[in-house]
Formats: sequence, C-alpha cells, structure tokens
Amino acid sequence: MNLGRVAEKLGITKERLQNLHDAVVKQSSWPEPRLLRFEKATSGIEAGTVVFENGEIIYGYPKIRRAMMLGPAVEKHFSGVVAVEEKMNGHNVRISSVDGDVVALTRGGFICPYSTEVAQRLLPEEIFEEHPDLVLCGEMVGPENPYVPKSIYPTDTIDFYLFDLSRKNCKSTLGVHKTHRFAEDHGIRATALLGEFNKDKAPEKIKQIVKRLGRQGREGVVIKDPDNLAAPLKYTSSETNCNDLSVAFRYYNDYALDFFLSRAIREGFQSVEWKESDDERRARALRLGESILLPMVDTIQRKQAGENIAQKVQIRVKSLQTAREFEYHLRRSGMRAIFDQPEPDDDGYLVRITKLVMSTNDKTQALLEGETW
Amino acid sequence: MNLGRVAEKLGITKERLQNLHDAVVKQSSWPEPRLLRFEKATSGIEAGTVVFENGEIIYGYPKIRRAMMLGPAVEKHFSGVVAVEEKMNGHNVRISSVDGDVVALTRGGFICPYSTEVAQRLLPEEIFEEHPDLVLCGEMVGPENPYVPKSIYPTDTIDFYLFDLSRKNCKSTLGVHKTHRFAEDHGIRATALLGEFNKDKAPEKIKQIVKRLGRQGREGVVIKDPDNLAAPLKYTSSETNCNDLSVAFRYYNDYALDFFLSRAIREGFQSVEWKESDDERRARALRLGESILLPMVDTIQRKQAGENIAQKVQIRVKSLQTAREFEYHLRRSGMRAIFDQPEPDDDGYLVRITKLVMSTNDKTQALLEGETW
Repeated sequence: MNLGRVAEKLGITKERLQNLHDAVVKQSSWPEPRLLRFEKATSGIEAGTVVFENGEIIYGYPKIRRAMMLGPAVEKHFSGVVAVEEKMNGHNVRISSVDGDVVALTRGGFICPYSTEVAQRLLPEEIFEEHPDLVLCGEMVGPENPYVPKSIYPTDTIDFYLFDLSRKNCKSTLGVHKTHRFAEDHGIRATALLGEFNKDKAPEKIKQIVKRLGRQGREGVVIKDPDNLAAPLKYTSSETNCNDLSVAFRYYNDYALDFFLSRAIREGFQSVEWKESDDERRARALRLGESILLPMVDTIQRKQAGENIAQKVQIRVKSLQTAREFEYHLRRSGMRAIFDQPEPDDDGYLVRITKLVMSTNDKTQALLEGETW
Repeated sequence: MNLGRVAEKLGITKERLQNLHDAVVKQSSWPEPRLLRFEKATSGIEAGTVVFENGEIIYGYPKIRRAMMLGPAVEKHFSGVVAVEEKMNGHNVRISSVDGDVVALTRGGFICPYSTEVAQRLLPEEIFEEHPDLVLCGEMVGPENPYVPKSIYPTDTIDFYLFDLSRKNCKSTLGVHKTHRFAEDHGIRATALLGEFNKDKAPEKIKQIVKRLGRQGREGVVIKDPDNLAAPLKYTSSETNCNDLSVAFRYYNDYALDFFLSRAIREGFQSVEWKESDDERRARALRLGESILLPMVDTIQRKQAGENIAQKVQIRVKSLQTAREFEYHLRRSGMRAIFDQPEPDDDGYLVRITKLVMSTNDKTQALLEGETW
C-alpha cells in the first residue's frame, strides 16, 4: 500500500495517517483482502472507513442523526420536499467488489464472512462487473440475521435491502432516486419509499406512517432530501423504542448505559409532540414500563430456574468454511458464542448459535445468591 | 498539621499521604477550620474522611450496600437477629465539635454552612461538652432540605435524625443500641427502630414494613446487626425507586446514566422476589413507566411554554452570613443556583433558592427547536 497516495486521497498528510495508526486506524489481515479500518471518525473521515491493500477506499456510511421533535427537526433541516423511506431493523452493510471478489463490510469496517456469503448469493454478479467502483449500502434483515434477528420482514432467512449507493474513493452517496432506479434495473430489493411530501405536510404524514409501522412492529423511517442536498434524519416508532428497551433489559448488565436513557427520552418527546390524551399517555407509560420490567423479570426467573442467560440465533450457510469464519469474526468482535454442529439442510447447512450474555448471567446469579449492589 | 502523625493515625506512610495529595486528598480552607478531604476511598480509608488542621480525623461514613434479593442477602450477610431501622430520605451528615465549634460535614467531607447552623440549633450544646470526641452520624430531612426537599416527615422545616455514633480518629461506629440509648438520653431524634427479627423471619417482616413505608412515600429500611458485627444493608420501596426515577427524568440530561438503570433493575428483582401476580406486575410496570414518562413530558411542556427548567427549594437561616456561605458552598459543589433576597421571618430569614438545571434546560430547548440527537 502506498501510504502517501492513500493519505492524499483521504485528504490528510502521510504523517497524520501514520500518527493515527493503532489509536484510530487498525490493521485487519483477515479475511482477505487485507485492509486498514478507521475505528473512530477523525479528520472528516467517517468511522468504519476502510482502505484496502490495493489502495481503494470505501468510506464509512455517515451516521444518520435522529429527530426528537419531528416537526421542528424537519422544518429546520430540509427545504421543499422530503422523501420518506422505511428504516429497517437489521445490520448495516456496505457491499462492494475488491480485486474481483464481493465483500460485505460491517459498520465498523470488518469484512463479515456471513454477510459476504449472503451478499454473494443475493446480488447478481453482473452488478460489479458493470460497476466495479460501486458500493451498495443497505440493511441485512430477517430471522437469520445473527446480530438482530427479526421475523417481521418477508423472508424466512435473511435478505438485503438497498438504501443508498456510493462509489469507492468517494464520500458522497447517490441519493434516493438513483438508488431506487438502480434497484429496479437490477432486480434487487430496496427499502420501501413511502412517499414524498412537502415539508409543511410531512410531519403529520410521517406521524401516520410511523404509527402504522409501529403497529406492525417495524422500526420507523429515514427522511431524505430527494436531491441529496441535506443529510437524512431518522425517526422511530414507540414500539421500536420499547422493543429496544425490552431487549436491553433482558440483558440488563450487558448493554451500554446510554442505550437505556436515550430510548426513554425519545418516548417523552414523542408523547409531547403528538399531544397525547391522558389515556394514550397512560398506555405509552404502561408499554414503556412493561418493556423494562417484564424482560428483566423473565431473565431473573430463568436464572432462578437454573437456565443460562443466552441469546439463540441461527444462520444458514452454503459452505462450512463460512460458518467457521463467522465464528472467528464474532469472537474478534468481542462476542462470546457457542456454535452447534452444522446441520445439513437443502444445499447448505443450518448453524444454531448460542450468544453468551456473560455479564447479565453472572450478575443475576450473584444477586439471586444474596450478593449486594 | 503534622503530616507524619496524621499518616500514622490513618495507617499509611507519610510518603503515601503526600502522594495522594491533589488526586485523592484535597485541601479545603473554607469555612474554618481548614481540613484535608479524601475525595475517593483509598488504602482502606473511606471517601469523605476529613483531617482537621489540629490533626483530628473524622472518618467517612461507610457506604451501605444494597440488598437486591432481600431474602438471600439477609441470609448470606447476617447471623441470628437483625435490627430494622427506617432509611430516611435527605442528606447524610456527620456532626462533631472541632476546637469547640460544632460543624456538620457532608458525605464528601465539606463543611456545609447551612447544615452546620441547623446542627448548632437542634443539638443540645452539652453533648459535645460532655463528649468532645463524639461524631453524630445522621440524616437531615424535611421540606427545607435544599438538597432533597421532602414533606413526608413530621417537620415544616428541617430536622436531624441520628442513625449512628462514631468517635474522632476511629473508623468503627457504636451501633444500633448505643445510638438509640444516646438519642433518648439527650432528647434528640433518631431514625425509627422498626423491630428486631430472627433472620429467618426477617425478609417477610421487612417486606411488610417496606410496603407500608412505600405507601407513605417513605424510602425504605437499613438492616443492621444489633451487635454491630456485620455491615448494614439497605433496601428500598418501589415507590422510592420510582420517585427517584421521576426526579431524574424531570432533569433527564443532568443525571448520571447509572442512576436510571440501577433503579429500574431494583424493580425487576423486587417483582420476582415478591412473586407478584400479573395484575401487581402490571401495576408496577405502569408506576415505573409513568415515573419515567410523565416528568419528562412535564419538563418538555414547561419548556415549550417558555419556562426555565429549574428546581425551587428554600432554607431558613438565623444569620444572613449562613445564607451567603451556603450560596458559596453550593457553587463549590458544582451547583448553579440563584438566591432570592432573604425575607425576614420570625427570628431569622427565609431564603428561596432556584437551582438551575442547565443541561436539561438547554438540551430541551434545542430539541424543541429541531436540534437532532
């Protein structure tokens, strides 16, 4: 890798790039191709940005900021018309072809062997033959998403939904219309475009959409400038805020503290903005309280009954190699998981995975035994 | 101050004491007498420990650990009989006489000018004439407690409840019986002793007590070994857990993150241990959810109506000097507060104080204006 040329492309000096090494920029030599990963955002370079050994850069997908008061945020942030897309609940990947091989990068800039196999299976080969510079940004969702398993989407396994396009060595993205046209042209799924609205009508429309999505257990929306002139904003349903809390309180000792608070605060702003009646507010409070209390109660009772606190997920792979590599990938991501023996299934294998939630498991056991806090 | 002799009394070397300076041990020269404060626990010395210029040491009151599962914690922690005292909701002070002057120390080891005036007013002078080495450990409670104003106790202003005794230069405390006898002998209030129970019966008894206290809006209990052979444990009512949350969510951006989570987790364990029915659990979930949602809604709506988010408290002082000094004390404790002009009242002054909650105030304003998160 020619560090000088890479630094120049990144818009920083070679010395700066060298200084960032270890603290911010990490080397990853597996799976191939080797790459440098920006673990944190720095010098205008998004976290998750990757530089491959051949010098090609795939920039991190920009973090989407959240509207807390939908109306004022849309008013302040956009001009004219906004496009509203469904925000899907899975894991974010960037898919591209490097030296002729399709790879799927996680948010953090790792190559995920499982997502890569899924991408290779789902995406027509000619996409990257025709567009070797293209980066497909999208969400992997479904019950066999081992990070965020969800059964609310029309797939029994895992599917990929495109939500933006970018190019190698390029920070900007191509935006709503080009993305949907591309998906249509190539027969791949894209996140649903739920409408375009004048910004004065948008908050009420989005409220109705988000309420409907919430009733279906779906996450919420991403609001975009159709001409890609302003950064997108996200906004989520109460059901998703509460569902997040419910997963977090099930594994209460394994989640970051701000995860809990941020979701609760969203509920307060939504309740005020939507001018809820006392009854509606009471229903929201009950939903919020139950999403906190009930999963904790369930975890404590399971532990009382001698169960181990763990999360069971499953993946389906074509090759046993992918399963082995994914096991290693989870471990390097700091997750402890037990992989069952792969079960042959159709033309591949089903692999059941038990993700260990050690901190909650041990803490609950200790507290049940009379440990103090 | 003879550092060598102080270090010897503290059980550490003079070099260690000198090394702790600045990072752990801070100097406080106001109000008089001057002192050294242990800001963190270290080398077996409790946080809040104070060394006065005359070399006398007042040790920090040991942190009381919390039972999460009451039954197993009592079983594991105590042997034989336990004494159950009410845990009061105010601020913890240690009161002693130094060079002939009564001073009240906060948990952190500051002399609080207001608590000191209250202590001087409430405590008979002869206590410290007879026992110049004594340290009274107790809780200041009432509606004119500017840290934790509460109207649930039988006082219109502020009162002091003794809960333990200690001596200067001595880490240990004298325990339940000596404390209550002392309070009785000297006509001062002590925290209510609610019973002594064999430890096998204690959890059920304590549950009934805590439920009753909860219905009265009171905090909970401290469980003590009557012979002072084991450290005490605390256990609180659901109403207090929820009330804490409700204060914290009213000022959601000004509280430490773990404050929120720890209170929610207590609710989970209590619900499991008390084997609640679905209806009881639903009522707890609603109480929990409302304690989170409603104060946030109130804060956001007040800000929407143009109010400043602030907390109004009041104190009553004999001398204007105390009010001025308390203003300075709050400031050095990192609190921003506006003191109204003192209003003459009986033989003293009523001072209304507006404690600013800047972070929540500014954050709420920004979010209402469409700022993203």
